[in-house]
Amino acid sequence: MRSSSRRAGTLFGPLWVLAVNSVVRKGVSILSTARLTPKSNLLSALSLCTFVCVGSARALADEGMWLFEDLPRARLKQKYDFAPTSAWAEHVMLSSVRFNSGGSASFVSSKGLVLTNHHVAADTLQKLSTPDNDYMKNGFLARRCEEELKSPDLELNKLVSIEDVTSRVKGAVDPFLSADEAYRARRAVMAQIEKESLEESGLRSDVVTLFGGAKYHVYRYKKYTDVRIVWAPESRAAFFGGDADNFEYPRYNLDAALFRVYENGKPAKIEHFLVMANAGVKDGELILVSGNPGRTRRLHTSAALKHLRDRTLPRALDLLRRREVLFQQFGYEGNEQRRRARKELFSVQNRRKAYTGMLDGLLDPALFAAKKAEEDAFRLQVQSRTDLGFAADVWDTIRDAQARLAGQSDRISSLARLSRYYRLAETLVLLAAEDQKPSGERLREFRSSARKSLEHDLFSPAPIYDDLEQVKLADALGYFAQLRGFDDPLVAAVLDGKNPGERAAEVIHGTQLKDVAQRRRLAAGGAGEIARTSDAMIELVRGIEPEYRRVRQVEDEVAEVERQAYAQMLAAKVVLQGTSNYPDATFTLRLAFGVVRGYIEHGRTIPPWTTLGGAFDHENRHGGQGDWRLPCHLTSYARPILSAEIPAALS
Amino acid sequence: MRSSSRRAGTLFGPLWVLAVNSVVRKGVSILSTARLTPKSNLLSALSLCTFVCVGSARALADEGMWLFEDLPRARLKQKYDFAPTSAWAEHVMLSSVRFNSGGSASFVSSKGLVLTNHHVAADTLQKLSTPDNDYMKNGFLARRCEEELKSPDLELNKLVSIEDVTSRVKGAVDPFLSADEAYRARRAVMAQIEKESLEESGLRSDVVTLFGGAKYHVYRYKKYTDVRIVWAPESRAAFFGGDADNFEYPRYNLDAALFRVYENGKPAKIEHFLVMANAGVKDGELILVSGNPGRTRRLHTSAALKHLRDRTLPRALDLLRRREVLFQQFGYEGNEQRRRARKELFSVQNRRKAYTGMLDGLLDPALFAAKKAEEDAFRLQVQSRTDLGFAADVWDTIRDAQARLAGQSDRISSLARLSRYYRLAETLVLLAAEDQKPSGERLREFRSSARKSLEHDLFSPAPIYDDLEQVKLADALGYFAQLRGFDDPLVAAVLDGKNPGERAAEVIHGTQLKDVAQRRRLAAGGAGEIARTSDAMIELVRGIEPEYRRVRQVEDEVAEVERQAYAQMLAAKVVLQGTSNYPDATFTLRLAFGVVRGYIEHGRTIPPWTTLGGAFDHENRHGGQGDWRLPCHLTSYARPILSAEIPAALS
Repeated sequence: MRSSSRRAGTLFGPLWVLAVNSVVRKGVSILSTARLTPKSNLLSALSLCTFVCVGSARALADEGMWLFEDLPRARLKQKYDFAPTSAWAEHVMLSSVRFNSGGSASFVSSKGLVLTNHHVAADTLQKLSTPDNDYMKNGFLARRCEEELKSPDLELNKLVSIEDVTSRVKGAVDPFLSADEAYRARRAVMAQIEKESLEESGLRSDVVTLFGGAKYHVYRYKKYTDVRIVWAPESRAAFFGGDADNFEYPRYNLDAALFRVYENGKPAKIEHFLVMANAGVKDGELILVSGNPGRTRRLHTSAALKHLRDRTLPRALDLLRRREVLFQQFGYEGNEQRRRARKELFSVQNRRKAYTGMLDGLLDPALFAAKKAEEDAFRLQVQSRTDLGFAADVWDTIRDAQARLAGQSDRISSLARLSRYYRLAETLVLLAAEDQKPSGERLREFRSSARKSLEHDLFSPAPIYDDLEQVKLADALGYFAQLRGFDDPLVAAVLDGKNPGERAAEVIHGTQLKDVAQRRRLAAGGAGEIARTSDAMIELVRGIEPEYRRVRQVEDEVAEVERQAYAQMLAAKVVLQGTSNYPDATFTLRLAFGVVRGYIEHGRTIPPWTTLGGAFDHENRHGGQGDWRLPCHLTSYARPILSAEIPAALS
Repeated sequence: MRSSSRRAGTLFGPLWVLAVNSVVRKGVSILSTARLTPKSNLLSALSLCTFVCVGSARALADEGMWLFEDLPRARLKQKYDFAPTSAWAEHVMLSSVRFNSGGSASFVSSKGLVLTNHHVAADTLQKLSTPDNDYMKNGFLARRCEEELKSPDLELNKLVSIEDVTSRVKGAVDPFLSADEAYRARRAVMAQIEKESLEESGLRSDVVTLFGGAKYHVYRYKKYTDVRIVWAPESRAAFFGGDADNFEYPRYNLDAALFRVYENGKPAKIEHFLVMANAGVKDGELILVSGNPGRTRRLHTSAALKHLRDRTLPRALDLLRRREVLFQQFGYEGNEQRRRARKELFSVQNRRKAYTGMLDGLLDPALFAAKKAEEDAFRLQVQSRTDLGFAADVWDTIRDAQARLAGQSDRISSLARLSRYYRLAETLVLLAAEDQKPSGERLREFRSSARKSLEHDLFSPAPIYDDLEQVKLADALGYFAQLRGFDDPLVAAVLDGKNPGERAAEVIHGTQLKDVAQRRRLAAGGAGEIARTSDAMIELVRGIEPEYRRVRQVEDEVAEVERQAYAQMLAAKVVLQGTSNYPDATFTLRLAFGVVRGYIEHGRTIPPWTTLGGAFDHENRHGGQGDWRLPCHLTSYARPILSAEIPAALS
């Protein structure tokens, strides 16, 4: 998401992301996703969060991240004279790809080629790299299929169908149940629906909560787990202009990469894919963008935003800065250390910037006052109508839920987030216990229908670096002690009489979780094996498990209370405002649109597109220093794609 | 202090610093401080916190940072057969220099040359640098006196005499006074002593609190305020090995610089100075080090250490990391931005590392338990003797004082620390009010005897960069809001309906404090002028002043309570243990000593010295990459010092 919210300076950042999605002009394009013009038959679209390319165009987005099954047809028709057919929508949907690890992409050939951002590919590039073959730094190009490298743990999803199951989910949750009971009932029915859908369709099936709990849809995905990297530029090209450009407006970086999905050891045959546009877009032209935005919070009450402003974001930022400094310090130890920590440092920095932007928005009194005034007016309306009595108390309900979270001892999972070993051990420990329950009663991520995806990650052979793990675990233990207080009995038990650094060294030394076969053995052995093993990391997690479950229970209950409250609020909104609208983002497929347009900055007109030559000018303006140094081999990367031999669809 | 405490892994870090102070071997020296051998007449010493030089030796320090008027003569005689004469001690004392801004140094010529660390000189180099003349990056060398550049605000102090005024201070503070009254009485008598001493001697006179309040000495300093930079290496040489080496063991960096002090526009004539040693030190040889260590906390009770561990240090680290990320992000915007923020980033990083080390030590349960056991035993001893009744409650007193601090709303001065404009405005606002009181009743920093030093800083023409100030003030305002809560009335008043970024821009735009003449006018105008001015930064500070004074009052009272309690504890200690010892560090002159010695690491014997050639080897081992690239001109810097023409004393 880059620093979208920072730049937009609003609470609801992702809109701006749309504006940096790119259409490539004819003649100067290096890579191209195809484009859609309503007046032509050329079928094409862009992926949300797709790359910002050398030679790119800028578009101003209309408000909206629309569900594919509920497109704003009237608006599109009226404003742009464009009437998407069902076949068009289905084609764009089937051409769109979701990276399960977070990210959007497009199919761009019949032979399984997937175009995405370099920053989406970065995790895989990092995992495939070694000190001698650093694909992040040097880029990667497979000249033949046999040279393509398989990702250790990528899972790509193609959305195949959507089904509304709202009535079945709501029917299973008696309105008179307590929050805890309602949560259990809802979890059970969702797991059941997913299980049935998986068995019936053979497809990954996720029940998605929309409109904060007013609607439930099953999203069915075709999964691809044999995913291979085909091409990625050097980080100098992908991240050209560095953090400075990234933070402001990444106009010239080649933030793109190609993967290929395989089935049964062969490139997958893809029926629906986007083709390269032969003609460039025009100024003022409509473009449409499909992708999977992560999260928005338009429904949030002022109490929830206040909690976000005064507690969640400041704490998250303290933690992110702590990690940023940690990874940076680790990287100071040498080039190899820098390489190992690079991807995590980058992620942490990007999140820090996004959250800083969100907090900046929330710290704007005028913006907050406007939100509050709108809420007060709406609340008054609701409370003045007897038929909306069901929603009269939702604001208080949400405020109380937030207060319960604030009183809650700090999240224990801060440990898990940082150390890969810890994460693996936690999954194994919870898995062993959860598998003794029926699928519908488990913590949601352990439901049977999601098992394959979970195991794909759990048994990933991606490298783990003990030196980095050591530093991460030591810091996480220190943070744990800081949050709970050093005299907390659990902290004392976890540290076992040592300081965080010593304890981390001991645990890392005493774990065999690097060995994938050992992980498989532990997973297969179930609760008995987990109880017996003397693996130090498993033991550490076992000690924390009861507290983890206690905290998790509170969080899940609070989430359930909020889900119900927001659903009621939305129902009242629909009665009063009668507007058809789109739900907050939930990392599911949406369509956005807007027109290609330049803008004015400091009195200068900025054209809607940049050119490849502009990248070299940009380099010159910065004296080719630091992050503004293009890689020598830029043109050699560009060649296979620029080449006249490449047909409209990549091969 | 570098990462001393980190490496030592103890609560009391500065000891290790002694171990990195250097004696330079004959033949390979570039720079040399002279050395002292007890068996020869060659008079010499090292400065504490002096440079670690290319070609350096390592010494293992004995425990102790001794007062010059109370040297451990028996121990020196017994262990090293060295009996320092009073003349010797006076000579070393008079050859030692303190940078009032923080740092130690030595006179090294009769014509006012002062040798110190590059990192001590960095603040001046930063202030003298411009985008076109970047002395931090490129180094500096004045070939003639006329080329030496005057620092905008350095003040150097030479300790001239020490007088014990314990009885006069204690006599002025009736033991039955309340903490507030005692604080006022003590402040008044200290200000009076300083004023009398200044008038009598014409010297800067500071009453220094020793042994946490058991003793009071007047330190009289000759001040030098015309201080010019003579030589500084490029940062590549001064910080060779970068943060990685700095964090572990800076063996090869040329962390040195030369200043010259002037009087009446001419190089000052210096009678006592250290001369270069003609012969190198030997393995096992005694060396002695004089300097001004900042602070130690050996007397701290476990309650005080707990407060440090659980509150002070974690908060300080959150803030430091916040600033580290802030300065780094600012630097990403370009080379000039990086240059502007460099010095502050460096300071913040160094403090972050030092505090991380302290916290690591405090997070060691064994270390903490040992401290507690020692305290409990001592406390039991005290409480079992009726003659020590005066000290029986000091632990509870200190615990309660800490609790009062913890209940205290967070320090308001966090704003001041970051923005130079804010700091200037705060000084002007407080000055105007304080000057209406007698000197002895003012906040201590505004006493009349310290006025010259205060004005030297207040009217410094050092550059102020509005873009950096803007970023700093915006962040400080955001932090202020975070600490006190956004709904706090003072926060609302300070932000004046804008978000932190907008408010910061408005205030920076509305201040004229960059203009030194304007500062002088405001200072001269007194309270009336401060009340009348519409300078936006002054107005901001005026709004915060009452709360600042309220918080300050609590802090000063708590400090007074602690001062009394520690004095009583120490008195009991002396009765029970009868040991003569040295007081905690207070940024006053001390002498430490130890022997030159190598050590064993990973089974390898590390010799006590490194050689100039080692720096080039070190560069090669790291492939000359990143921070391990020596500057091309290293030898040209070295030449004027290495040259055979240079006599034993630099000219």
